[in-house]
Amino acid sequence: MSEIIRIGEQVLSENNRLAAQIRSRLETLQLPAINLVSSPGSGKTTLLEKTLTHLAGHLRIALIAGDVQTDNDARRLTAAGGRLVRPIVTGGACHLDARMVTQALQGMALEECDLLIIENVGNLVCPSSYDLGEDRKVVLLSTAEGDDKPLKYPAIFRRAGLLVITKLDLLGTSDFDLLRAEEHARMIHPGLEILRLSCRSGAGMESWYGWLQQLALAKKAGSGAHA
Amino acid sequence: MSEIIRIGEQVLSENNRLAAQIRSRLETLQLPAINLVSSPGSGKTTLLEKTLTHLAGHLRIALIAGDVQTDNDARRLTAAGGRLVRPIVTGGACHLDARMVTQALQGMALEECDLLIIENVGNLVCPSSYDLGEDRKVVLLSTAEGDDKPLKYPAIFRRAGLLVITKLDLLGTSDFDLLRAEEHARMIHPGLEILRLSCRSGAGMESWYGWLQQLALAKKAGSGAHA
Repeated sequence: MSEIIRIGEQVLSENNRLAAQIRSRLETLQLPAINLVSSPGSGKTTLLEKTLTHLAGHLRIALIAGDVQTDNDARRLTAAGGRLVRPIVTGGACHLDARMVTQALQGMALEECDLLIIENVGNLVCPSSYDLGEDRKVVLLSTAEGDDKPLKYPAIFRRAGLLVITKLDLLGTSDFDLLRAEEHARMIHPGLEILRLSCRSGAGMESWYGWLQQLALAKKAGSGAHA
Repeated sequence: MSEIIRIGEQVLSENNRLAAQIRSRLETLQLPAINLVSSPGSGKTTLLEKTLTHLAGHLRIALIAGDVQTDNDARRLTAAGGRLVRPIVTGGACHLDARMVTQALQGMALEECDLLIIENVGNLVCPSSYDLGEDRKVVLLSTAEGDDKPLKYPAIFRRAGLLVITKLDLLGTSDFDLLRAEEHARMIHPGLEILRLSCRSGAGMESWYGWLQQLALAKKAGSGAHA
């Protein structure tokens, strides 16, 4: 057991070393980066499709789309107008790590971009342990899940810099209580910034676009905070 | 890297040894067991609450409820009438393993039960690798997720003995296509048995209850198949 723990620590320590290299490179480029984490089906890819369409001409976005077995997401994002989209197929692994991201970044024309978005594998547990060199982790929670998720999967809510509650249009179709969900999230992470939106109805989308633009502006102004 | 792979293989081999012990004990007891796996928020606990209520007096169900950080699910299941409910709090781990289940089973009066249900941690990736000694893995997919999930997370759909499509009442609120979801599941696992249901409307619930009762009867008749 202690051997397993030791190996686990080595893996995380090596990951942190590579994440620091990524962060340093992004810092030089003044390029902000977010790491998008959620359960499968919370709507990461749909949110990114809408974002690419809406911000086209305003914000040049580079994307890394992680998936366990297909490059479906990367193809959807390219079809939605993504100019610089790289898939990572983990081949079974349950999270992205800094080594995979380092490889994906090779040869990407990042100097022509204003924002890097990394879409993690759909998993609310494992991705929380792996720093990818991002400025902020952003966790998505859909109203079709349960409002107790922040309590049940606290690590990612503790480490996230933003919670986005998605599928607002489905409120009322289940027992999901929006205020209770937010209360649970802030029990785990006091002061956590929260946005609520629906890609379907369009509600709340402007705040999300504004948040991304603000992140990009703050980094260019040299005041970007680190994860 | 090779050291990590070697350790990983040791972990899985030790898990398989313990899972075989669990399976042997359940075989002696003629007690069928299922291992319920899904994303967070697909409705595992709600389905089990309904099941406990409906089958009370018909099928004596023992439950193990796995969670990363709380015993919320175990408390909900006890409140729903579960007489024999054991929580496993993994303390951050992203899946149940056979060692945790072995410990949880200690002292449980399994000889007084007709069915053991193990509710895994909400995660569509990692639990697929860990045999818990069950007869069948049952994977849940909610219509609020995406119909491409079987392609994106194939391992659990390949290893499951049953797919339960949940939240049928939400069909039409998103782009989820039921036939396409089933087609994707059978591309990964030809012949996979599929049930469709809604805990909210009650649609399809009788087939689920019937499936569980059939599993229990088949085991008592000595014809239960192994995972």
